[in-house]
Amino acid sequence: MAKKLTTRGEDYSKWYNELVIKADLAENSGVRGCMVIKPYGYAIWERMQAELDRMFKETGHENAYFPLFIPKSYFSKEASHVDGFAKECAVVTHYRLKNAEDGSGIIVDPEAKLEEELIVRPTSETIIWDTYRKWIQSYRDLPLLINQWANVVRWEMRTRLFLRTSEFLWQEGHTAHATEKEAIAEAEQMMEVYADFAENYMAVPVLKGTKTASERFAGALETYCIEALMQDGKALQAGTSHFLGQNFAKAFDVKFAAKDGTLDYVWATSWGVSTRLMGALVMTHSDDNGLVLPPNLAPIQVVIIPIYRSEEEFDAVDAVAKELMKELRREGLRVKYDNRDTQKPGWKFNEYELKGVPVRIAIGPKDVEKGTVELARRDTLTKEFIAREKVVGKVSGLMEEIQQNLLAKAKAYRKELTTEVSSYEQFKEVLENKGGFVLAHWDGTAQTEEKIKNETKATIRCIPLEMEKEPGTCIVTGKTSVGKVVFARAY
Amino acid sequence: MAKKLTTRGEDYSKWYNELVIKADLAENSGVRGCMVIKPYGYAIWERMQAELDRMFKETGHENAYFPLFIPKSYFSKEASHVDGFAKECAVVTHYRLKNAEDGSGIIVDPEAKLEEELIVRPTSETIIWDTYRKWIQSYRDLPLLINQWANVVRWEMRTRLFLRTSEFLWQEGHTAHATEKEAIAEAEQMMEVYADFAENYMAVPVLKGTKTASERFAGALETYCIEALMQDGKALQAGTSHFLGQNFAKAFDVKFAAKDGTLDYVWATSWGVSTRLMGALVMTHSDDNGLVLPPNLAPIQVVIIPIYRSEEEFDAVDAVAKELMKELRREGLRVKYDNRDTQKPGWKFNEYELKGVPVRIAIGPKDVEKGTVELARRDTLTKEFIAREKVVGKVSGLMEEIQQNLLAKAKAYRKELTTEVSSYEQFKEVLENKGGFVLAHWDGTAQTEEKIKNETKATIRCIPLEMEKEPGTCIVTGKTSVGKVVFARAY
Repeated sequence: MAKKLTTRGEDYSKWYNELVIKADLAENSGVRGCMVIKPYGYAIWERMQAELDRMFKETGHENAYFPLFIPKSYFSKEASHVDGFAKECAVVTHYRLKNAEDGSGIIVDPEAKLEEELIVRPTSETIIWDTYRKWIQSYRDLPLLINQWANVVRWEMRTRLFLRTSEFLWQEGHTAHATEKEAIAEAEQMMEVYADFAENYMAVPVLKGTKTASERFAGALETYCIEALMQDGKALQAGTSHFLGQNFAKAFDVKFAAKDGTLDYVWATSWGVSTRLMGALVMTHSDDNGLVLPPNLAPIQVVIIPIYRSEEEFDAVDAVAKELMKELRREGLRVKYDNRDTQKPGWKFNEYELKGVPVRIAIGPKDVEKGTVELARRDTLTKEFIAREKVVGKVSGLMEEIQQNLLAKAKAYRKELTTEVSSYEQFKEVLENKGGFVLAHWDGTAQTEEKIKNETKATIRCIPLEMEKEPGTCIVTGKTSVGKVVFARAY
Repeated sequence: MAKKLTTRGEDYSKWYNELVIKADLAENSGVRGCMVIKPYGYAIWERMQAELDRMFKETGHENAYFPLFIPKSYFSKEASHVDGFAKECAVVTHYRLKNAEDGSGIIVDPEAKLEEELIVRPTSETIIWDTYRKWIQSYRDLPLLINQWANVVRWEMRTRLFLRTSEFLWQEGHTAHATEKEAIAEAEQMMEVYADFAENYMAVPVLKGTKTASERFAGALETYCIEALMQDGKALQAGTSHFLGQNFAKAFDVKFAAKDGTLDYVWATSWGVSTRLMGALVMTHSDDNGLVLPPNLAPIQVVIIPIYRSEEEFDAVDAVAKELMKELRREGLRVKYDNRDTQKPGWKFNEYELKGVPVRIAIGPKDVEKGTVELARRDTLTKEFIAREKVVGKVSGLMEEIQQNLLAKAKAYRKELTTEVSSYEQFKEVLENKGGFVLAHWDGTAQTEEKIKNETKATIRCIPLEMEKEPGTCIVTGKTSVGKVVFARAY
């Protein structure tokens, strides 16, 4: 095993970058800003996908697939959308390469220039609404509840694995409704689905709320979000769900005939989460020894490591280990028995600690003799000896216990790092010395929001859904406020 | 329901295009050559993905994800690969758009030109082997068994939904091995996995074999393939698995230290199937009434349709239908109960016939009285009345029966459309008047292959794995041949 990780205390940012690479989650590729998601990282993402996909289907959504490319002109159709998205994009201008005549290699064939440039989708509202025009005629075609799993590209100058990459993987839901009320209910429902997933699978507590106008999705009337808090006191937007009003229906001329025959524009939502969730997962639970994974998403929930010196010892240990693996798998647990003879037990202990496997079981000759195993928890780093016949029951219970413990720990941390302030001085002091979520009265104007952002780098993460309606005065302007909103420095 | 489908007899090609659109599988998008896969089509693809993914994992493969973009220079590294793939590609040359100064809309920012153009991946060997160099040092790192589910782009001038589109979805396996023997075994294993999937899930019988040198993947030493036969007598390549030798390892300098310390280049394979399989599925089983889906892949295996005139009748029928739905679902069947009151039963009958649902159950007031239901099979278009208490047993059995029947029918058809010929005259006559697979002796030269192709449009689909070693003489040149190969006109 390579040398130790940089600790969080030394340099949180460096710790994160090292951890993502050393734990085999992802790495940078030869293409600027694009990552390679390695098998171990991808296995976690697959588990996320599977649970989210199930939740989407349970709420009535179907999957479909729309083109990777979007004609440039589509972006101009929705006025605010174009400013938000048609900027830092990958632009396809040609469709052919050829051998250079001077033998210097392959070059772009100047004769194969596209009449209209194609944009690699940064998000798919435009191409999808261009399609929905053909799919929607009457109220019978509504609601249209569709999701897409896809790759998207937003050209980023400063990238960080999972948190900000030029290409990333995500899902984007795009729904169409007959009424405003129904569309708002859908947008709110999907925020709840995301919050449920974050808390119960990722063990990441999130604040639910709405974005201010300046932080809204380009083209949305309301953006709902879930906001998580990382261990360095910075916030991370983990998912968004947008109520789009009739903006895209108007831009792409999507009307439906109501039961009474009247024609009206359709109401829309869109919502998405991405591989950014991987970053949130890593930064919420992991420690200076490596990853800490919640059992509900861990590709390996239990690893069994044999300890032996002679072949004879191995045979005795191996028999117990294999039987135990079978029993645990019968309980539906994801178990790996690492019996490789190319690595020593100490190396394996470090390796699975680094990779965040929730439970490690070690079995040596003495354990065989005594009818015990050594059981170690990744979340608490505690070890104990357990009678062989009690292992399956114990481990099954531990899955739920560890899952709950991680959520409780993250909640306690968030509570500690949430501060209500009543003056701008205090606001700045907390941001500087403590970090975390800062609740403060704000006068509701974009100017004040902007001023605070420029002076402190803190943004309004959300207007919390469960905001207490308590009148007060803005910490900056002294104007009236209806309740405290949540500020933080953010990823 | 819209007017009837064009029949296969009238115009097979038109029948296919209409069917794919009317059955809600896919449609053309506003982007040249790129399709929209609609929810019903995507649901079939998801079932294909799920089964294939399970089979890949059972054979030891893991999923990962590599960048969408490949730097242009990567393609030049493997000499024969560049000629095969760096041609009709989507080329990204810029990374930013901006508002035109004259207010005419958005334009490509000329200042945001990439130093090196990026190619949207047509296949990922180059970017993956550039990555494997970092992952592989010693025999301990081998075999490396990785698969990727992704979208790829190959600029096509003439496109057809699923069969040939500029963007398509696929999986691409890329493996690295310590020995030639192991790599060949892997390539052969994956061809077997594909054949197993085609026959047992798609109910599409396939010939297994190898490609001739001229039909090989660019950069491969051997290409294994599975070839299916469509109802119009044309062949369709349904999947390929390539033994790449050390070509990519040499191009990207990927060496490993063997146990004895010697350094050697790694041996490689790659293998893939794509949304083209959807085309094969449609064209193998469907008829003039619409899709016919094998139960193993059908998103809806059983549809229940209530027949009623009054509310009272509906209530009686509805109670039986709901109970039956529950019972069938308990058996693990995918059941839809279509109780919409916006459409008439006749419309629904046509709709589910068009969509290929294997079994339809209709329940009317008389059925409730008599304790029966009407059960219709999509594959045979037969109907019968069944006692209510026997329905669950009957339908469960039908799933396997229909699956087997479709495979048997397709096998019988293929047998009928497979002809052994002994002269070039007969060869041309069969191709012209009967079509299908034509088995003939060939002298093994690229010249003869080319001549036959130019004169008859038939290509060698494969040198069959189970070729009878029977010496003979080439139908064109009269030179010696070791056994008959399989010719056909192909998609």
